[in-house]
Amino acid sequence: MAKRQAILRAAAEAFREHGFAATGMREIAEKAGLSPANLYYYFKSKDDLLCFCQEQALDRLLEAVAAQSAASAEARLVEVIRAHVRCVLDEVDGASAHVAVDALPPALRRKIAAKRDRYERAVRRLVADGVEAGEFRPCDPTLVARALLGALNWTVQWYRPGGRTTPARVAEEYADYLVRGLIVSDA
Amino acid sequence: MAKRQAILRAAAEAFREHGFAATGMREIAEKAGLSPANLYYYFKSKDDLLCFCQEQALDRLLEAVAAQSAASAEARLVEVIRAHVRCVLDEVDGASAHVAVDALPPALRRKIAAKRDRYERAVRRLVADGVEAGEFRPCDPTLVARALLGALNWTVQWYRPGGRTTPARVAEEYADYLVRGLIVSDA
Repeated sequence: MAKRQAILRAAAEAFREHGFAATGMREIAEKAGLSPANLYYYFKSKDDLLCFCQEQALDRLLEAVAAQSAASAEARLVEVIRAHVRCVLDEVDGASAHVAVDALPPALRRKIAAKRDRYERAVRRLVADGVEAGEFRPCDPTLVARALLGALNWTVQWYRPGGRTTPARVAEEYADYLVRGLIVSDA
Repeated sequence: MAKRQAILRAAAEAFREHGFAATGMREIAEKAGLSPANLYYYFKSKDDLLCFCQEQALDRLLEAVAAQSAASAEARLVEVIRAHVRCVLDEVDGASAHVAVDALPPALRRKIAAKRDRYERAVRRLVADGVEAGEFRPCDPTLVARALLGALNWTVQWYRPGGRTTPARVAEEYADYLVRGLIVSDA
């Protein structure tokens, strides 16, 4: 598992350098310091690698949204936003995976889409729970969840590693903005 | 101009049916009820058409963000959000344009990118103005504008015309959510 993880990081680096489409298993093996045969032992294909990458990212997101079910909806949502930003910006494997979802063949894409739907439903439920508990203002949880996840997913479009804005800054500002829009004002 | 507009709608329809990459000038001409030669009189190429499409969409957005400079920052931002949703969801030409920005050759892409940057700066300034006026809470206008525009742009990823959710519903719910996150509570 640690080995597969290390290969993902090497692959992410290769994707960033050459672009996803132009990167072959040979380049990935080189970056990972493996022989091509050795790489094929861990991943059958580039698609297999990309799929593993996306599944891992979504598993982490599902964990984040399931965690702390005893805490307030606000605290839980802040955690989800932090985890999502970390997942798509900090861990470059997650980001490239995310961007390249359309690159997967249909069967794998369906598998990932099903997991992503599960995550989106969980975020929707979290918003709805907050409304029910009177913590969040009445709203349409489906549309609010989509706005929130859209803002988070779009970060990969403009974020550049090594710039002035760190993933931690993005996470804090986004959590602040996107949670405040839901909070019942204490007036 | 009206003719070019009508061609855009026909093109949008063709893009939706066949996908952007698979649609040729021939299919667009057919949809528009023109001979190919006649179509080439209005647009030199598919890239030319796509570029016009995007420029138009961005011009409308720039208009929306420049309008009503006398009104409150809140009212202006609501108008910008409405215009943006309309632009990417209602007017399918705008949506397909938006999604296909990477399909443009570098020179045209730079032109569109420059206009998009102008729009993003204007939204940033609108948020900053609201903070300065004490209408909006202190925040990082750059990151807030990115979150807001990200949520709006992401709508093209999930929105399906003809479904239960209309663009008007999206606009109202998004405006409500994304503006509330900025308002200073009246407590």
